[in-house]
Amino acid sequence: MKKESLNTPRSDRDEQTIKLIEALANQVRKAIESGKLPSIRMPVRSLDNVTYDQAAGYLELGKAERVRTLTVNTARSFAQTLRLMATSRTMVESNDFATKREAYYISKNWGDCRFDEQAESDAIMDDIEAVASLHDLSRENLRFYPESHGGSVAGRLAIIDQNAKTGQLIEVDCANLGSGAYSIPRSAEHLRFRTDARFVLAIETGGMFQRLNNHRFWETANCIIVEMGGVPTRATRRFIRLLSDKHNLPVYCFVDCDPYGFTNIYRTLKAGSGNAAHVNRFLCVPRARFLGVTPQDIIDFRLQDATHPLAATDVKRAKDALQNDPFIAAHPECIAAIKQLLDMGVRAEQQALAKWGLNYVIDEYLPRKLADAGRFLP
Amino acid sequence: MKKESLNTPRSDRDEQTIKLIEALANQVRKAIESGKLPSIRMPVRSLDNVTYDQAAGYLELGKAERVRTLTVNTARSFAQTLRLMATSRTMVESNDFATKREAYYISKNWGDCRFDEQAESDAIMDDIEAVASLHDLSRENLRFYPESHGGSVAGRLAIIDQNAKTGQLIEVDCANLGSGAYSIPRSAEHLRFRTDARFVLAIETGGMFQRLNNHRFWETANCIIVEMGGVPTRATRRFIRLLSDKHNLPVYCFVDCDPYGFTNIYRTLKAGSGNAAHVNRFLCVPRARFLGVTPQDIIDFRLQDATHPLAATDVKRAKDALQNDPFIAAHPECIAAIKQLLDMGVRAEQQALAKWGLNYVIDEYLPRKLADAGRFLP
Repeated sequence: MKKESLNTPRSDRDEQTIKLIEALANQVRKAIESGKLPSIRMPVRSLDNVTYDQAAGYLELGKAERVRTLTVNTARSFAQTLRLMATSRTMVESNDFATKREAYYISKNWGDCRFDEQAESDAIMDDIEAVASLHDLSRENLRFYPESHGGSVAGRLAIIDQNAKTGQLIEVDCANLGSGAYSIPRSAEHLRFRTDARFVLAIETGGMFQRLNNHRFWETANCIIVEMGGVPTRATRRFIRLLSDKHNLPVYCFVDCDPYGFTNIYRTLKAGSGNAAHVNRFLCVPRARFLGVTPQDIIDFRLQDATHPLAATDVKRAKDALQNDPFIAAHPECIAAIKQLLDMGVRAEQQALAKWGLNYVIDEYLPRKLADAGRFLP
Repeated sequence: MKKESLNTPRSDRDEQTIKLIEALANQVRKAIESGKLPSIRMPVRSLDNVTYDQAAGYLELGKAERVRTLTVNTARSFAQTLRLMATSRTMVESNDFATKREAYYISKNWGDCRFDEQAESDAIMDDIEAVASLHDLSRENLRFYPESHGGSVAGRLAIIDQNAKTGQLIEVDCANLGSGAYSIPRSAEHLRFRTDARFVLAIETGGMFQRLNNHRFWETANCIIVEMGGVPTRATRRFIRLLSDKHNLPVYCFVDCDPYGFTNIYRTLKAGSGNAAHVNRFLCVPRARFLGVTPQDIIDFRLQDATHPLAATDVKRAKDALQNDPFIAAHPECIAAIKQLLDMGVRAEQQALAKWGLNYVIDEYLPRKLADAGRFLP
């Protein structure tokens, strides 16, 4: 790893990350030196240890812990845990990062404790991440970055970044990218923002994003638009979270009117997902509100003849959400909206608004909705 | 469609598009006025009318034509064809665009000739597009844009665009986006470029793109890097094509060493796809060359222990390509490489290079390969 002596000064987060890794390593070393079996305590990541904290606004890990102790059976995974932690430390020190896939391949030079499959390295990475989350450190702080692409951004926002080699500041003006957009990097931790926008509009489809961008909707509406492209990736969620936290910006979610749009895309953005509860506190955007398309919009904007019948999977997804989703259960307005959708038996896409003309969404729909943001679903 | 009086001056392409639509419409009107059944001639789009032109370097439509004549049976599709052409004309005049999905929804106000499913509007759009392609006009010129997101770009490139409302020039410096990148818009027709790069590096995975971007590989290698994210979308292919044509830039393709990387990603980028032969002439990048990862690289860079066995689908895909792909058949070096891969029985990902250290790809692999670009597969 030659080229990695980048000049960026280490951040407080980096110092905390190294401190945590050293503390865990020292604890293991001490146990060994005093002739005891070393062990590492970790939060239990299974669903029975996940709760929805309505005050915090997201699904979070409970207090259950398990202990990984070095035994004949755990020797390999114990060593792998320490090796991955050491890799993380090296990356923080050299200001580098690895995708989950790269982390798996790095192990190919670890001899007997190499990972045979990525599922193994992912599981151990999740364990380390869960430990770190107890200390307010995310996977990105550990320098393990997601594979998945971030969304696109345009609007009244300047992103302040730096040249990773020289440390020189770089400013990207998202109001000056023409028909293009800013592609969110895999980690947003180091970004700073300058903005006079009033809100963030998180959009499900690329086509709608492109329409709003080409017509510079963000200029007149004084906002920032973000393309989620379906369920938002980690990078996109973290970007929106940091932006909305640092600048106290409301986030409005604009998706298709179907169970997937509501219970998958919107719920993941706002409250996170159950099987990654240890990271929701970093990724979810509790202040997000649901702008639409709502079932009532189908009636109010006369979209009935541009709808499609709910498929069996839609109905199943909606009923599952009503029965099992703690976030939905906590919000009577959401329950009512999902029941209304099931009663109507149809779904409507964002693009259905094109029935009234390609730019009806810009000229009519969004202005009418935004004039009454207090009524957005929670 | 109120808001669409955008100030951008109409381009030559726009004039040609309107002229073509008017010519087709006049022909229909004349036939009707002289009491004849109107008809429209269209290229046959089926695979038997597709050939690989080695000189041109792409799969292209042959000369077979069919005639859509107005009859009782075709009344609906004939009207839909004219309506979609009229929509296209309106969009050119107002400098707007529609995704395929939006085009489908627009029809919901067409009464009896509304489309019931998007498959119908897509098929008719393909017909119109095939006619236009005979006149050197692409679907983007007709203002029907793809749904799919473009890739990301960074490096020694300035993109010259304009404010769609004021016509004011906008310049995006792709060397100054920090850890972010430029997200390619759904149509690149209107873009101009300024660059001193020596080549374009088209990269399969987002993780590898991020690595090369964060370490500013493009700065030292003097190039432009493009993230394809698997098989490149239309927008990405057109962007690379325009860039390489206008600035005479070689394009090097850097993908996984597996049949999918070679016969799907690379072949689609370079020679296009069989089921969209009428558009390959606009989208494919005949000057693309295959940098790697090649089967020989697995040996030369000692990646054997970071490979995975070929799956049954890999073997099938490779054998299909050897038997049926006219592009592969035309290039003995490609045949040899695919046979070598089948003999070795393993595949290797770009990330496998991380076995030698995260930045081995930057410090060793790419410099060694680029020093001998003449040996890249055709």
